[in-house]
This record gives sequence, C-alpha cells and structure tokens, in this order.
Amino acid sequence: MPVYNAPLEDIKFVLNDVLDASSLTKIEGYEEATGDLVEQILEEGAKLCENVLFPINQSGDEEGCTLKDGVVTTPKGFKEAYKEFTEGGWCGVSGDPEYGGMGLPMLVNTVMQEMICSANFSFGMYPGLSQGAYEALHHYGTDEQKQTYLPKLITGEWSGTMCLTEAHCGTDLGLMRTKAEPNGDDSFNITGSKIFISAGEHDLAENIIHLVLARLPGAPEGVKGISLFVVPKFLPEDMSRNGIECGSIEHKMGIKASSTCVMNLEEAKGWLVGAPHKGLKAMFTMMNAARLGVAMQGLGIAEVAYQNGLAYAKDRLQMRALDGAKFPDKPADPIIVHPDVRRMLLTSKAFCEGSRALSYWVGMNLDISLKHADPDERQAADDLVALLTPIVKAYQTDMGFEISSLAMQIHGGHGYIWEYGVEQYARDARIAMIYEGTNGIQALDLVGRKMGAHMGRYLRRFFHPVSEYIEANQANEKLQEFVFPLAKSFAKLQQSTAIIAQKGLKDPNEAGAASVDYLRQFALVAMGYMWIQMVEAAQKKLDEGTDNKKFYESKIKTARFFFARMLPEGDWHFKAVMSGADNLMDMTEDEF
Amino acid sequence: MPVYNAPLEDIKFVLNDVLDASSLTKIEGYEEATGDLVEQILEEGAKLCENVLFPINQSGDEEGCTLKDGVVTTPKGFKEAYKEFTEGGWCGVSGDPEYGGMGLPMLVNTVMQEMICSANFSFGMYPGLSQGAYEALHHYGTDEQKQTYLPKLITGEWSGTMCLTEAHCGTDLGLMRTKAEPNGDDSFNITGSKIFISAGEHDLAENIIHLVLARLPGAPEGVKGISLFVVPKFLPEDMSRNGIECGSIEHKMGIKASSTCVMNLEEAKGWLVGAPHKGLKAMFTMMNAARLGVAMQGLGIAEVAYQNGLAYAKDRLQMRALDGAKFPDKPADPIIVHPDVRRMLLTSKAFCEGSRALSYWVGMNLDISLKHADPDERQAADDLVALLTPIVKAYQTDMGFEISSLAMQIHGGHGYIWEYGVEQYARDARIAMIYEGTNGIQALDLVGRKMGAHMGRYLRRFFHPVSEYIEANQANEKLQEFVFPLAKSFAKLQQSTAIIAQKGLKDPNEAGAASVDYLRQFALVAMGYMWIQMVEAAQKKLDEGTDNKKFYESKIKTARFFFARMLPEGDWHFKAVMSGADNLMDMTEDEF
Repeated sequence: MPVYNAPLEDIKFVLNDVLDASSLTKIEGYEEATGDLVEQILEEGAKLCENVLFPINQSGDEEGCTLKDGVVTTPKGFKEAYKEFTEGGWCGVSGDPEYGGMGLPMLVNTVMQEMICSANFSFGMYPGLSQGAYEALHHYGTDEQKQTYLPKLITGEWSGTMCLTEAHCGTDLGLMRTKAEPNGDDSFNITGSKIFISAGEHDLAENIIHLVLARLPGAPEGVKGISLFVVPKFLPEDMSRNGIECGSIEHKMGIKASSTCVMNLEEAKGWLVGAPHKGLKAMFTMMNAARLGVAMQGLGIAEVAYQNGLAYAKDRLQMRALDGAKFPDKPADPIIVHPDVRRMLLTSKAFCEGSRALSYWVGMNLDISLKHADPDERQAADDLVALLTPIVKAYQTDMGFEISSLAMQIHGGHGYIWEYGVEQYARDARIAMIYEGTNGIQALDLVGRKMGAHMGRYLRRFFHPVSEYIEANQANEKLQEFVFPLAKSFAKLQQSTAIIAQKGLKDPNEAGAASVDYLRQFALVAMGYMWIQMVEAAQKKLDEGTDNKKFYESKIKTARFFFARMLPEGDWHFKAVMSGADNLMDMTEDEF
Repeated sequence: MPVYNAPLEDIKFVLNDVLDASSLTKIEGYEEATGDLVEQILEEGAKLCENVLFPINQSGDEEGCTLKDGVVTTPKGFKEAYKEFTEGGWCGVSGDPEYGGMGLPMLVNTVMQEMICSANFSFGMYPGLSQGAYEALHHYGTDEQKQTYLPKLITGEWSGTMCLTEAHCGTDLGLMRTKAEPNGDDSFNITGSKIFISAGEHDLAENIIHLVLARLPGAPEGVKGISLFVVPKFLPEDMSRNGIECGSIEHKMGIKASSTCVMNLEEAKGWLVGAPHKGLKAMFTMMNAARLGVAMQGLGIAEVAYQNGLAYAKDRLQMRALDGAKFPDKPADPIIVHPDVRRMLLTSKAFCEGSRALSYWVGMNLDISLKHADPDERQAADDLVALLTPIVKAYQTDMGFEISSLAMQIHGGHGYIWEYGVEQYARDARIAMIYEGTNGIQALDLVGRKMGAHMGRYLRRFFHPVSEYIEANQANEKLQEFVFPLAKSFAKLQQSTAIIAQKGLKDPNEAGAASVDYLRQFALVAMGYMWIQMVEAAQKKLDEGTDNKKFYESKIKTARFFFARMLPEGDWHFKAVMSGADNLMDMTEDEF
C-alpha cells in the first residue's frame, strides 16, 4: 500500500526560515498571511489530503471515468471527497472575500496544490480548473457575471473549465475554428468542437462553467481574432441545459480519474468575457498562476514518489551492504544501505526540497506582484514571476516524471506492478510536461519573450540577487563549499545567456536551438541559489541551538549532494547551448 | 495509427560497412553468415514484424492477457501470429541444426530481436523466454533432455520460461526458498512459489518448459545451494499435467499482452539440469545473451518511437518556422521546422543508429566468443562481451524509455492518448530497465566484476582499440572534428576508471557510488567510438561515389549532433563519479 505524509515540517521551514513569507503580512489584506492561522490551515489541508484524497487515488486510477449518454461518472468516492473538499472551503482559499473567498495569499494555494497533487493528482484537476475559470471571470467578467458565477465557483457548487484546444490547434491557437454568432441580445451562439478539456464533464458539481475561446464574425485571422466567452452547462437564469456536450472522453496514459473530454458546442449560449478579440490576452493574464499550478503538480508527484521509494528502501531486505552486513541478524540488509539506492533517494530529496523553495518563492512573488502597495515592488515581483514561471513549469514537471521513474527503479520489479502505486505516479506525472504549454514551449517563452524583455530587466531580477549573494558570501566560511560551485555555474549561465542573446538576434533558430538546454541550465542555477539559502537557514538554526538537529543537518548533507552530483548537469547543457543551431538545422527533412 | 518500417538499410550498413560482419564467415558453420542468405532472412523477418506482429501490438495492449481457471488467454491474434512465427522457423534461427535449428549466428537473432521488439514488445517475450530455456538445456542438459526438449523448443511447439524470482528475493537469489525433494528415481518433487514469470502460462504453445531454480535438501545456504531443474507443464512421457500452475497474473504498467505470472509449484515433477548446487552458474552462463536481448528491446522500442515521432513531426501543422514560414500555402508549417523538435528527433536518431552499431558489435563478438576456432580470439571476444553487456543493457534500456518519452513530447497532447500509440511504447519500455538485473545491478556488475577482472584485461579489450583508433586518426582531416571530442571524453573515462579502481579497492562503497554514472559515461564513449567509425564508413562510401548520398550525408550530420550535444553528457557523470561516496553515505537512515 502506498504511503503519503504531507511534508509539513519542510513546508514550514521554507515558508518561515528560507523565504520569510511573513513579509506578505505587510500587504493589505494579508496581515495574517503567515504564522498560526496559515499553519492551522495547512495542517487541516494536510489531513484532508492524507485522509480523504490519498485513499481514493489508486482506486480512482483503476476505475477511471466513464461516459454514458453524455454523462461522465467519476470513480467511487470522488463525489464524497469533492463534497468534503468544497464544504471545507478549499475552493476559496485565495478567493476574493467579496464573493465568499478566504482572501488568503495565492502562496497558501500553491502549498495546497503541492499536497493535493501528491495525494491525488486526478482529483486536483477538478478544483484546479475551477480556479482558472474563477480567475478569468474575476479579472475580466462584468459585475453581473461576477455576481452570477464567482460565489458558486468559490463554494465549489459549480466547477469550471478552460476550452482552448481544438483537434488541429493546440500550441497554435491562431488556427482556431470555433465560431460565436451574436444573438442580438448580449449573448452569442457558439458552435465548434474542443478537445482535451479537463473536467469538461463530470458528476461532482451542479453546474460546469466553461470558458471558451471562439471567433466572432469578421474577426481578424490568427490569434488576434479570438474572443473569450463564458458558456455554462446549465444556464443560470433557469438552469436549463445549454448546447455544450461531452462527445467522448480520452483513453489516456494516466490521470484516469480526471475526465478529459471532447466538448461539442452546437449553438451553445455564451457571453463575452472581456473585450472582443482579446480572448488570448485574457488567457495569458492567468497563465503564470496556471503554469505555477502545473509546476506544483510536478513537485507534488515527485514528493509522493520519493516517500514511497524511501519507505520501500527501508523495508525491502535484499543483499548485504557492500562493506559488510549492517543487520547480520536479518536475512539481508535493507536496500537503503546501497550507495546507488541512496543516489536515487537523494536525487529525489534534493529535487523536492530545492524546488519546493524555488516554486514557493515564485508563488510568494506572484502575491507581491498582484497586491503589494508599492508599484515598484509589484513590478519587480512581476518581472521575477514572468522569468521564473516557464522555468519551474518545465523543470519541475520534467523532474516529476523522472523522480517517479526513480521510485519505480528503487522498487525493482514491484515498481512495474500497479498495486505498489508508483507506476501510477509516472503515468500521472507525464501529462504535466505537455499541457499548459509543452515544456519546449516554456523554453521558447524563456528565450524568446522573457530573456530580452525590457533590455534584460527580467533577467536582472534574478541575476542581481544571485550575484550579490555570491559576493556577500564568498568569504563566509560555512558557505564556502557551496558558494564556489554556485559561482562557477552562475558564470556559465551568464555566458550562455550572452551567447543566446547575441546569436538569437541574428537568427531566431539559434535561440530556439538553445532553449531547452538553457532552461535546464537556468533551473539548476536557481536550484543552487535556493539550496545555498537553505543551508544558511539551517546553519543558523544549528548555531542558535535546536532540538531538531537531524532535520537541519540533513539539509546541509542534501545540499552537499546537490552541489556535487546534480548541479554539474548544467555543464552538459551549457555545452549543448554553445554548440549552436547548425547541428540541428543542417539536416534536410528527408535526411531524418 | 502508429507506423513501423524495419530499418533494413541502416541494419545492412552496420553489418556490412561498419562492423564487417562478413568476418563471421570464417567461423566453421557460419560460412554464409552474411551476404545474400542473411539479407534474405532479414528481409523476410522484417516483413513478418511489419505485417504480422506490428498490427496486433496496440490491440494486444488494450486487451491484455486474462486468467481464468488457471488458463491464460493471450489477446486476439496472438495465437495466429505465433503460429506464423513458429512455422516460419523463427524460433530456431540460431538453434543447433542437430535439433532442427538453422544454425545461423546469434547476430542474426540479435537483429531480429530489435525488429521484433519494435513491432511488438509483448509478443517478443514469448519466443524470447523460450530462447533462454533452449540455451540452458543446450548447455547443461543431458542427451536425453536435449532430445526431449530442444526440437520442440526450436519448432516453437513448446515454449519456455525462467523461474528465478520469489516474492522476497529478486536480486538476492541467495534467499530462495523453493525446495526440490528427490523421488528416488532421477526426478524431484519441487514445491514453492515463483513470481514475475514471463510467459509462465499462455495459450500459444502446446507445452511450457519451465527452468526452475530450487534448493536440494541439505543444500548450502545462499547462492551456493541453488540447483536448476527442468519442470514441464505437461510431462513429456504421457503429456499428463504437472503440478505447476499459474496462481495469478500481474496488473502491470505495460507489456500487457505478455503474461507475467505467479507460478505455484506443488510437488511438481522436475529433473536436475547440470550439477547439483550449480544452478546459478548455469543461469549466469546465459546471462550475456539474455542481457543483450534486453538491450535490443531498448533499441527496438526507441526505433519505433522515433519513427512515430518523426512521422508526426512531418505531418502536424502548427505555428510557423522561427525564421519565417516554410510553407506559406499551408495554414501552418509542419513542426519539424522547429529546432527543438529537431533536437528531440536527432537525439532519437543518434541513439538508435549509434546503439545499433554498438549492440550488434557485442552480438558479433558473442558469436566469436562461442564459435571461433582460435581460443585467443574466443577469449578476446568473450572479454569484450563481458565488459560491454552490462553497458548496453543499462544504457539502451534507459534510453528506450527516454526516447519513447521524447516521442510523446513531440506528439504534444496526442502523445498522452492511447490511440496514437506512443504512450504504450513508454509503458512497455519501462520494464527493460528493471528486469534481467536492474540497471543499478548492471552498473555494479561493471565496476565490481568486470572492471578489475584479470588485472583490467576486459577493460583493455575496449581501451586499446579506442586508443589506437584515436592515435591512427588524429591527423585524418575528415575525421578531425570527431577525433578530438572522442579523445577528450576517452581521457576522462580513463581518469574515472583509475579513480574508481583505486578508491574502490579500499572501500567498495566508492565503486558502488560511482557505478551508475560511470556506466553512462562509458556508454557515451562507446557510442562515440561507434559514431566515428560510422562516419568513416559513410565517408568512404561518399568518396567512392554512391547513388545514396542522402543516407551517408545524414550519417555524418547525425554524428555531428551526437558529438556536439550528446557526448558532453559524459562530463556531468564524470564529475559525479569524481565527487566520491561521502555525499551518499554520510546521510544516516533517519536523515532521509
């Protein structure tokens, strides 16, 4: 039986000792953003994840969703769990109090997303999509739309979706064909077919509020002619059924308890959200939060995979330690004595803890970017979020899959067997590298849109603090062993940045050819910057005296592993970046 | 619909122009080992894979195997395909002519294994396991046993299994509990339970011949007290049912059309194969061939994944090329115009072609090691096989999974959907990293058993030719750009080899801590050595004049990609090796 325990100790360490999330309390409305209230909320949330969502994760994978006569049935227990989830107010953690939300920072939501995805990735899709619909309407909806939809989305009585993709257009939304015809009143008749619609149809909520991209008559071609509409499954005025129906659900590798629907719209009634032809812009506004949410899926699945790999490694008796039996009274030693099993576990631990700090940092800056009183602070935070979001999305989801695969490897043959639970993590994790912009698209966003923006201003939001940190600590004896490798990898990152900026100006394929390797190189430096700060925080605790020495000493040892064995991966990607585009572009199509 | 075309052109290039497989014709019995006969056989085999095995691969995954009343039913079409496979003589390609085999080199089998696994990984498990049983009996069986079993295994009327694993012992066979009690005649009563038995029960063959490891009464503890028995499902004397039954079949991530069985033995009648207590040695004799077979599974699945990624990349229209529309008349450009899609495709292509050369090289040496007239030649080949087998097994299966995942990524959202076929490749591929010795065990085999053997003699079988090649070609203008990076990475390999040898002597955990990174570093150098020879062969063809310039020029461009972007991965692993064991072993168990 798989295990999951919410990593509250580490979460609190990151929030309180590494990031100083208490700085959020200076923001109006967030006065209680950290401390007891938030800790209580997270403890309650952890219980919900451990006791309600996790127990139906495996059965949900086995049963999957079923479609019959246009009705999607979720697996056993999902309805009850959703009820408990919504009644606990978890759909409204960072929702606007004006509409019934708790008004807590997004950061609290970010932490919850991690735990929810550890416990039950599929389940998390339903409130996750509602969150997206909530934000679209909160930002761009009319007052009437807000009054109609937001309170119900916050209670979870209604859920939401985002209907973007069509069969012939995923990344390339400019090719979209779904049409919206004005009805003469303020409504539109929308016709078309959307695919890959998560939570498009299900039996958890009373109503489903679809946010649909479509073209108005005479709209400009391409992405500049796309508008956003709200299309409820049941019309709020009389709860009559609207013309949007689930045509089929996908047979997927994983997240089988999350319904992925083909949604057919036949003269479905919808209302414009925001300005005509500005639908894509509305979508992009929410993109950072959505992509951070996907990054949390990567971390969440890695965390639960790690926990299961660790439990198995401590339990499974097989062979003796290479340097002699550690438990001579047992028939064999637990496999955690083996260096390579430790390598896999430490890779997992170093990733989870490092990326927890990194993604919470982004989450915290997302709050600052939205709510801080000082516009300069807001701008600085917004820049940092813009820069780091594609990085955490791509890196954390790549690693979510990789760490799940490591957990399988630790389990040996049992890792391949459904009952042990870990192969599900790998299957579930895989989607996060693809949706919400494939990881290749994230990398293009980084080199194409973020890198050069405002003469490198986004980049400086990260490069300057790292630079300053290295400078300030180069003589710090206790950090010495970490400052040096960080400085070296940072120097290489600056070098590859300069090369891409310079070559990419002349030939955009040069930037494209470097993009994925560059993103990984960047992510590793960012992880190093997090790890050194975690060492500093842990060292401080140890110097002050603590009764939890084990926790803080483990941090320092894990950092040592990260700097010795994971950070050097960046050198490889650096070389790939520096090798240029010719080795990719010289191939003619028929030479492949 | 997924596609598969056997890569015959590349297979012939490797056999004829890179490896000079015609040298096998100097071996007695192998006079026709290459040339027309083998090419005809491979062409026939390719047709069988494309037209018979591939069309039932996806349906086999969907339907899976079912167990009812002890009877396992394979998916629709498998019985007919097996009949066609066996009637074509494909179970006996390299079987002993004395028992009805074709007597062709193992290398022909190795090539067939690649194509079979591309077409239908699950199907390949059934004849694959028979091959293992065949070899165990051929090496260690009595004349009577050989007469009884081998002809039927060669025709495929009967199939075989290897029953090693028990619930509490996978890697650590010393913990085995299955018992064999002598019956007074030459037979034994065998009782115990085996798990993860591939092809343990199915409806393809008339009889199943299990090779079972068990303990004789009073046998020494541990691995020195294990004996090998042949336990037929139906006793050959009267075809009465023996006491070995399938208790359940596993619910697995992939290879769903291959039955993975719990086999319960209750006083099953069996006969000793080879000497008492020497069962493990008998198993290990066949290990190189079996592990090479698994390496071919990695390559096979990568090849078919690559082909499907490529087909999709040429077909899918989405976005414009970064440097301007390539097909302005189409609504968008095919995604193969994008540098990062090309990076994924070239990674796949460079892996498949490089590892094809590498693993066929191992396969050819396996033949030489078994059959060459000159004992020195046999020894040299045997050493090389011993050294490279764990490397190709681990590297090629790791990459089989990775390349399948890249094919999914190229497919975007469709990659996650069952109908497109590529997510099945990832699920199928994943097992090969685990079975036949996990890839961590392969790495321990490399550093623990192969590296130091005979004062480094195995290593020299690889290091010397590489060294000589570099020396001989350092002034070769056409190879210059490849010789230099190969020499650099080779120097680092020699350095890490020396460090592991030196540190590992004092502390075996040092060797264990380096093992997996070292194996990957080694594999990349071996791939580099193959790629440079392929460049040389291609260059020769171009210099001679050829009407297939595209093929040879593509080779050189792919090599350029490999050296620029894949080989540098070794630098990362080199640093990990050099970082030593402390960063793994310093963690106490409760600090994880």
